[in-house]
Parts: sequence; structure tokens; C-alpha cells
Amino acid sequence: MNEEIRVDHDKLRQFVTWLFTRLGCPHGDADATSRALVASDLLGVESHGVPLLAGYVPRIERGAVNLTPNIRTVKETPVMAVIDGDNGLGQVVGTRAMELCLKKTKESGMAMVVARNSNHYGMAGYYARMALPHDFIGMSSTNATPTIVPTFGKAPAVGNNPIAIAIPAGEEPPFSLDMATSTVAMGKVSIALRKEEQLKPGWAYNENLGFASDPAAILKSRMLTPLGGLRDTGGQKGYGLAVAMEVFCGLLSGASFGSRHLTPEQRERSGPNLGHFFMAVDVSLFQPLEEFKAWMDEFLRYLKATPKAPGHDRIYTAGEIEHEKQKDYLQNGIVLHPKVVDNLRSLADKYDIPFEILREKA
Amino acid sequence: MNEEIRVDHDKLRQFVTWLFTRLGCPHGDADATSRALVASDLLGVESHGVPLLAGYVPRIERGAVNLTPNIRTVKETPVMAVIDGDNGLGQVVGTRAMELCLKKTKESGMAMVVARNSNHYGMAGYYARMALPHDFIGMSSTNATPTIVPTFGKAPAVGNNPIAIAIPAGEEPPFSLDMATSTVAMGKVSIALRKEEQLKPGWAYNENLGFASDPAAILKSRMLTPLGGLRDTGGQKGYGLAVAMEVFCGLLSGASFGSRHLTPEQRERSGPNLGHFFMAVDVSLFQPLEEFKAWMDEFLRYLKATPKAPGHDRIYTAGEIEHEKQKDYLQNGIVLHPKVVDNLRSLADKYDIPFEILREKA
Repeated sequence: MNEEIRVDHDKLRQFVTWLFTRLGCPHGDADATSRALVASDLLGVESHGVPLLAGYVPRIERGAVNLTPNIRTVKETPVMAVIDGDNGLGQVVGTRAMELCLKKTKESGMAMVVARNSNHYGMAGYYARMALPHDFIGMSSTNATPTIVPTFGKAPAVGNNPIAIAIPAGEEPPFSLDMATSTVAMGKVSIALRKEEQLKPGWAYNENLGFASDPAAILKSRMLTPLGGLRDTGGQKGYGLAVAMEVFCGLLSGASFGSRHLTPEQRERSGPNLGHFFMAVDVSLFQPLEEFKAWMDEFLRYLKATPKAPGHDRIYTAGEIEHEKQKDYLQNGIVLHPKVVDNLRSLADKYDIPFEILREKA
Repeated sequence: MNEEIRVDHDKLRQFVTWLFTRLGCPHGDADATSRALVASDLLGVESHGVPLLAGYVPRIERGAVNLTPNIRTVKETPVMAVIDGDNGLGQVVGTRAMELCLKKTKESGMAMVVARNSNHYGMAGYYARMALPHDFIGMSSTNATPTIVPTFGKAPAVGNNPIAIAIPAGEEPPFSLDMATSTVAMGKVSIALRKEEQLKPGWAYNENLGFASDPAAILKSRMLTPLGGLRDTGGQKGYGLAVAMEVFCGLLSGASFGSRHLTPEQRERSGPNLGHFFMAVDVSLFQPLEEFKAWMDEFLRYLKATPKAPGHDRIYTAGEIEHEKQKDYLQNGIVLHPKVVDNLRSLADKYDIPFEILREKA
């Protein structure tokens, strides 16, 4: 059995910043990227944290990402902006865009910013959560290459574009929904493969449009079901939400969408031209802030007090599991998979960075 | 077998306006209500059209709705407003709120309006669609008394609060998603009861938290599954979306939420204090309008061109089925259930209104 490996979140962040600086990022951009990645690890969302470096670094080394992008605001009013990310790292473009969105929200009460010419930006919830310290509601989405099979279709046609919504509370952990619009994110398929488990019925289609069980086949075919599954159980809703997010991320920004999503070869040359969506709303315009937060606490506690199903002793609100993971990981270190740690160690060697992220055993 | 009964949409609208005037509404409010109801019938969404009169009229006759409400704007900035509906008809409050939202969007490019102290407002998609003639994206939601059982719970705790998003296109029918955040809307349970059919697996829970088949039991217990169903197939996402909509509709507006939702007895005295949410975005701020519409056409056509599953020859985009129904119903008359027509006829008698809505047989 593998022993659990824990790493210090602060040292991990410094390490990743160092790495991106070595790769060629200006320090501020390296810092923004490491913050976004390690924030995901801290919440236990490994699919969007430093394990992504295994894919990011080779792309950067091949020159497929612009590490010194000229990120421009193409259009702007007091409540909106369109950003061109100049094929920069998604975390850099995303952080810049959400910061602009928050600045506009401070001035106007509400704002929406969309970005094009970007790359994979990690966890949508990271950008939504950036609104919380300002007592704003935050929202974010990104588009992605097609993985969702539309209702009555037999091929993927739209990305499993996530919906992230973060809402501040008082004493309770904030509400933080971060969901793929497919039944499960592709990350869960990868995890099943790593653990040598079968996919659960309803997650993905096999070639006969029955439910697939083999994760390796799905990583290739990318035939995920929309949230809701088949038509009888509301799959057209997940499909519809994915399409709506594609419009916000792809069409409003002028990014890739539909058949304009690039092939892997094209993406190597010009970047994937992904699009993102960011929004913030100042709750204090609507209700006095303290009252709103007290109501949020009341509502979240009410939900958690729902009578429990047999075999369950707890009902969760969105983001609560991640909140508790974060408390543990801040104090005791982030649990990383040994393979991930191995990759970090080899990056440390390659880029001549001191490898001092491991937690001392208690 | 019942013969199909079709009614003229324009005459139906005049009839319903007349009815609400007779019941005590000012003419403008009666007109707003009939427009919202008949618009649903025209789209084939019978659950939110004139069949609702069977419930609405008795409530009005008992004095549970304020037909001459003082609808006030409680808070306002150039991008937002909070409306107090003074227990007016939901369609009156909703129409007024969305009109204000559209006016603000014309001036500011984007706006969000929430309303409290309202009643059942019918079809969420009606308000979202009000944005389309302005070439805006429209959104709406409403809260409702609890019908969704949270993941790991055994009682309903949050309403199946809908998400409606309408997006203008060029030559293609507009994208118009209008979805309950439960697997199926309660209206589908009522329809199953009327047709003496069983519920499909995954729609609702029985008392042992297996899937229910008896529609009558569910109309009583109100134990719907969230979109996504069980935890393994993403039910926590539908539950999370319902909670997020409750915050937008209930908490931001100061309406009922959680344990503050009123009992049927309380609702008779003071109204249900339901809350609604409305939003609009001017797409031309982001992209030149004609370009955006051409992209929408391209994207919707691309989705419809997805290879088809065996046994299916067509893939739909959201709102397309309703769009075609509307074309038929505008030309040939709206199909109404005989029981619904009987109710309209008895209302005509009671309130001394000429009953001239039936289409002549061809």
C-alpha cells in the first residue's frame, strides 16, 4: 500500500511559482497560476490542481502557450468587458478577467466579463470564489472541446462546460457550486482508470449507446452523458445548460465554439482559443449585507437539517465537503498522489528548483 | 375518444383578459396576465397556460390575491432593482419586473431585477423570452414551495426552481431553455395521473426512497428527485442549482425561503410571498449583433447536425419543439384538453362573458 504523501500548501505554491518563472512566465503570472492550481488542491479537487502540470508543462515546453501574452481589453463598459487572452495560460487570463469583473462590480454593482484566446483555466469555482472576500456573488464558466452527446445524438457535440456559483454566508461555509454539465466530469473517468474501476451506469455511452463501463474507451471517444442522462430523466436539461454556457463563454467572447473548436494539431500551433465567462453581483445592493448573510446561514442550516435517508447521517450544501478538506489540508498538508509527487520531483530536477514541499511526518 | 378541441389564440387571450377584468383586475393587469398564460398555451406548455385558471380563479374568489396591488420599486440602481409585488398576480408582478429589467438593460447594457411578495408567475421562459425582441439574452427563475429532496435526504427541502435562458438567433428559432431543477416538473406528475400512467424510474422517491411509480402519492408527498437523480448520477448538481436559484429569487429579494415558506393556511391570508429573478444582457455590447446572430445560427445548426442515435432522426435545440408547436397553434388554433375547455365555459357562464373562442372545424 502506498503511504499517504502530504505537502505543505505554502511551499507547494512557492514551488509552482518558481517553476512557472523558470518556464518563462513573468513573476506575477507565475504567482497567479500557482495560486489557482494550489487552491484546487487545497479543496481536494485534484483534477484541477498541480496534477495538471503533467499536461501543462509539456505544452509550454513545446511552445504551444504564450507565456508573455499581451492580454487586452477589447471592449469595455462600466458593467462588462471582452478580454483577449493572447493565448496566455488560462489561469493568468482567468485571474485577470475576474479581477476586472470584481473592480467593475465595486463601481457598478454588477459586471460580466468574457475572455477569448485562452487556454484551460483549471477550476471554474476558483474564479467564482474570488468574489467571496468582497461579499459578492461570483460566477464563472469555461468552454471546452466537445464531450457531451446531445439528447438523441451518438457523438459528442458540446463541452461539459461547468457552472460555478459562489455565494457568501455568515458563519456557515459559503455556498460554492462547481459542476460540470455532464453527469460526471472527465476527471472522474480518469480517476476510475487510475483506480482500475468501472464507470458507473449513466456516466457515459458506449458505441452502441448503452452505458459504458470502460474508462479507457471513454477517454478516447469522449462520449459523456449530459447531466440528467437519457431523455426520460431530463438529459436534455444538462445538454441545454452546456449549450447556454458555450454561448456565454464561446460566442459572446468570440472564442472557439461548435465546429470551430480546433483539432489537437491546430491547438499546438495557435492555442485552443478557449473562452471563459465571469460574473459578480454585489449582494448589498439588494439586501443589507449582514441580513443577507444571516439568511444564508439560516437557509444552509435548514437544508442540512432535512431528515436523512437511511444509511446517511448528514446532508451537505455545495462546497461544504471541499471546505472541510481545505481546513484539514491547510493544517496537515495537502494529500497528493505519489505519481503527482514523482512528477513534481522530476520537474524540480529538470528546472533546478529546490524540492522542499514535503511535510515532515508527525 | 375525445375529438381534438382547438381554440383561437387571439380570442382566447381576449376571453382571459375579460375574465380577469370581471374578477377585479385593472385592464392592463388583466391583459398582462392573459398574455403570459396564453403564450404558454401557444408553446404547448399546458402546465403553465390557461389550465392554471382552475386553481387561480378560486384563490382570487377567496380573496387570497391582491388584484389592485401597489407594486413598488423598493431599491434601484441603473443595473438592478428590488420589487415588492404587494401580493399581486405573479404574471402582473413578473411582467412589470421584466419590463423594468429590459428598460435598465437598454440604458446600462445589463440588469438584474428581483421581486418578492408575489404569487405563482407561470412559465419562467415567458419572462426570459421577453428579452428576445430587444436582441437581449433573457433569464428568469422563481422560487416555489419545497418539492426537491436534497441528496441523502428523505423529505423535500427546496423548490424545483426553474432556470430559463433565452438567447436570440438569426434565422434559426431562438435558443430557449426552460427547465425545472428537478428531474421532471410536478406538471409531468399531474399529466401522468390524468393519463393514468406510472411515473418513470428516477422521477420521484417513494417513502422507502426507492423510485416512486404512483403519481397520486407524489402529488401529496412532493418527493421529487433533483436533476441528475441519485448521488452517483450527479443529483447533487440539480439540488445545488435549485438552492442557487432559491438564493437569487428568495434571499436577494426578501421573499419566502427555507422554513419561511408559508403553509397553505398562511398563504390564504397573506399570499405565499414568492420571489422571482429576472436578468437581461445586451449581446451587442459583446459582439456586433449580426455577427452574434450568424454565430448562433451556425452553432444551433451544428448541434442539429450531430450524428443521430439509432431510432432517432432529429436532434433538437432548446425551445425548438415549442417553436414548432407555436407555428401550428398560431395557424390552426391551440389544442386544449376538453376538461380545460369545460372549465373556461363554466367561467364564461359565471362571469357573463361571451364564449367565442372555439375554432370552426375546417
